[in-house]
Amino acid sequence: MKAARQLARWLDELGRISDERGRLTRTFLSPAMGRANALVSRWMREAGLAVRFDAVGNVIGRLDGPDARSKTLLLGSHLDTVRNAGKFDGPLGVLLPVVALAELRRRGVALPFAVEVIGFSEEEGVRFASAYLGSKGYAGLLTTADLNLRDAGGVSVGEAISHGSRGTATAAKLREAARPPRSRDLIGYVEVHIEQGPVLEQAKLAVGVVSAIAGQSRFRLTWSGMAGHAGTTPMNLRRDALAGAAEFVSGVEALARRTPGLVATVGLIEVSGGAANVIPGEVTHTLDVRHARDAVRRDALMRMGRLATRIARNRGLERHWLRTQDNAAVACAPALTAQLARSVEAVQGSCLSLVSGAGHDGVVLSALAPVAMLFVRCRDGLSHHPAEHASPADCDVALRVMVDFIARMAQQHGR
Amino acid sequence: MKAARQLARWLDELGRISDERGRLTRTFLSPAMGRANALVSRWMREAGLAVRFDAVGNVIGRLDGPDARSKTLLLGSHLDTVRNAGKFDGPLGVLLPVVALAELRRRGVALPFAVEVIGFSEEEGVRFASAYLGSKGYAGLLTTADLNLRDAGGVSVGEAISHGSRGTATAAKLREAARPPRSRDLIGYVEVHIEQGPVLEQAKLAVGVVSAIAGQSRFRLTWSGMAGHAGTTPMNLRRDALAGAAEFVSGVEALARRTPGLVATVGLIEVSGGAANVIPGEVTHTLDVRHARDAVRRDALMRMGRLATRIARNRGLERHWLRTQDNAAVACAPALTAQLARSVEAVQGSCLSLVSGAGHDGVVLSALAPVAMLFVRCRDGLSHHPAEHASPADCDVALRVMVDFIARMAQQHGR
Repeated sequence: MKAARQLARWLDELGRISDERGRLTRTFLSPAMGRANALVSRWMREAGLAVRFDAVGNVIGRLDGPDARSKTLLLGSHLDTVRNAGKFDGPLGVLLPVVALAELRRRGVALPFAVEVIGFSEEEGVRFASAYLGSKGYAGLLTTADLNLRDAGGVSVGEAISHGSRGTATAAKLREAARPPRSRDLIGYVEVHIEQGPVLEQAKLAVGVVSAIAGQSRFRLTWSGMAGHAGTTPMNLRRDALAGAAEFVSGVEALARRTPGLVATVGLIEVSGGAANVIPGEVTHTLDVRHARDAVRRDALMRMGRLATRIARNRGLERHWLRTQDNAAVACAPALTAQLARSVEAVQGSCLSLVSGAGHDGVVLSALAPVAMLFVRCRDGLSHHPAEHASPADCDVALRVMVDFIARMAQQHGR
Repeated sequence: MKAARQLARWLDELGRISDERGRLTRTFLSPAMGRANALVSRWMREAGLAVRFDAVGNVIGRLDGPDARSKTLLLGSHLDTVRNAGKFDGPLGVLLPVVALAELRRRGVALPFAVEVIGFSEEEGVRFASAYLGSKGYAGLLTTADLNLRDAGGVSVGEAISHGSRGTATAAKLREAARPPRSRDLIGYVEVHIEQGPVLEQAKLAVGVVSAIAGQSRFRLTWSGMAGHAGTTPMNLRRDALAGAAEFVSGVEALARRTPGLVATVGLIEVSGGAANVIPGEVTHTLDVRHARDAVRRDALMRMGRLATRIARNRGLERHWLRTQDNAAVACAPALTAQLARSVEAVQGSCLSLVSGAGHDGVVLSALAPVAMLFVRCRDGLSHHPAEHASPADCDVALRVMVDFIARMAQQHGR
């Protein structure tokens, strides 16, 4: 299929747009994100979509419906990446719908509803250690707490947005400016994404539908002890913040290992103002905890809190928890998912339903509209890595599912 | 004593020269180091010293002896600091001799030997995680391995030195350029330094002499595992580099706690290319291990090596050790130390001898000359912290000891 080859070419080209030389990294409102948005908007226009950008850097390609009362189908994913990323995580779900809509236009299929394809500006939580800034901005759900988060350079989310839009960004103004279609005017939000896990590979299937997205909590923890000279302070007189943090990291790992389905990760750690010959006085690290059942996650967080309290007491440290993100598990919409599953069965012969351990923009969009997700098999379940790979054949299956799905929706909504 | 008040004023003034706003940080060849050198060289000239700078940024104030055959007495310490430092660690040992020499000049004491007061440009190991670059440069002992060390910005020691001197720095050229006085022309190296520990405070003494400097080893360890998605990789399939490093940090702490006199510190740790939602694929951290007996330190390092091997094997990680520093314990020179102790007894009434857990420039200078050290009591044994404090009265005692010591040496070497 010619459309599948175009999709592969676009993924390659977009994958070369990076903030770092020699590896793929695009973060919220970075220079590379600006170039990526320009490229994607060109492709959207070529596919017949009208393009707009919103205040938080989302690129939105819209195909109007037959009249002002037409409902809208949302399709999309994110264009930002982790550091040293692969080229599929995010962009696949933005570019595939654009190719699908171009293919439907080529076939002369008229749609009885409007479509918006959204390339969200932030989903990975790299720059501000908090995810979904793009979809929250689109949905008008950014809070003052979100805007006050600061990056490693001390710039806040609000300042970064204000810089781009030449005005002071407030939560109220952004809510006002967002103006997403009203919930009752939305058919739903459908996202295509690589699985980022091994289930489809083990089942020898190209694609599957998602039943639910695991809930997740993220924190920034700070441990404070007493800096001191590494050579002259006896071990028993130390209040070493890193030794405390290390004990916590090990304890969190042990707790997650003995709790089925729970994953817990400390991804970043830093000694503030440290040196090789100074006992760490302050250490900050992230914590990411996920489970498909909210009760299990909440119980694990309580145990981790007690563990931190015990470590701090035993070592004479203070610890501070800042919750940077908290998302309940999200069940995908049954009717929309069933519709998507019918297209999967039509193209692939059978359909598998699976839980997503990763968070996705659908978590935020579920506040606005019914959500469904299509997962595409990826090699070795690997993502967030340059070797991340979804085969052209599997992407072609996903593309045909999307074309079939939109065509069926058109029949169903046809008047 | 008027001279003691001048010393206190100079320490205050120098303590305000920093690379960071609101806290004291001066690192090797930084802008603040340039300003500090300019200020110290002005004070040296006012005290009657001829000032020169060498290729590695040391400031050297020299008082010539009566003739070309005169021997030379070396006095000094370092002018760089840790991050967020106190104002005594280093500068006290540079400024106190300058004030002492001015005082001796005021009293009309003629010296039968030359004196060099050296403000070393690097002792703390902050910028390159390896210490003594200043004293090694002065002594002509910098190696190609030293010059190849890189800072966080990727700049090597050699490049940093070349940038300042407008020529390509090599170990051979720096050895050639250093030209310290020949060993047989040196009387010795005497350093005044705050104790950075609690022994003098417990003994209620202002100053004491050092019998030996503990041996120390420093390393940069790198743990390599596999980066992956924090949400979709089950705990049992992870190769988390930070979880391995955390286990090692805890194990090193436990080993040091059960080995009398041993101190071991992980002062810096970093996840390479990490993010809150990515399993750490690579982690780098420092390790600093010290003991007054070299055999105990070597045995501890062997155990730590076995611990790292075991952790790496159990977790499917690779680990890499880079030794950035290795200094045997250094015994201070008995005759020179006895001479210094006589001055301490004359001024203070009694003298205490103690081991230094911290490394000092004397470790390097011991390759050239007999070394003696005078420790000054500091409040709560605290150093490497803004609250680091030596009282004006204690600094005055140290100053009177130095004046007495130089005067006695002049009598002894008088012809």
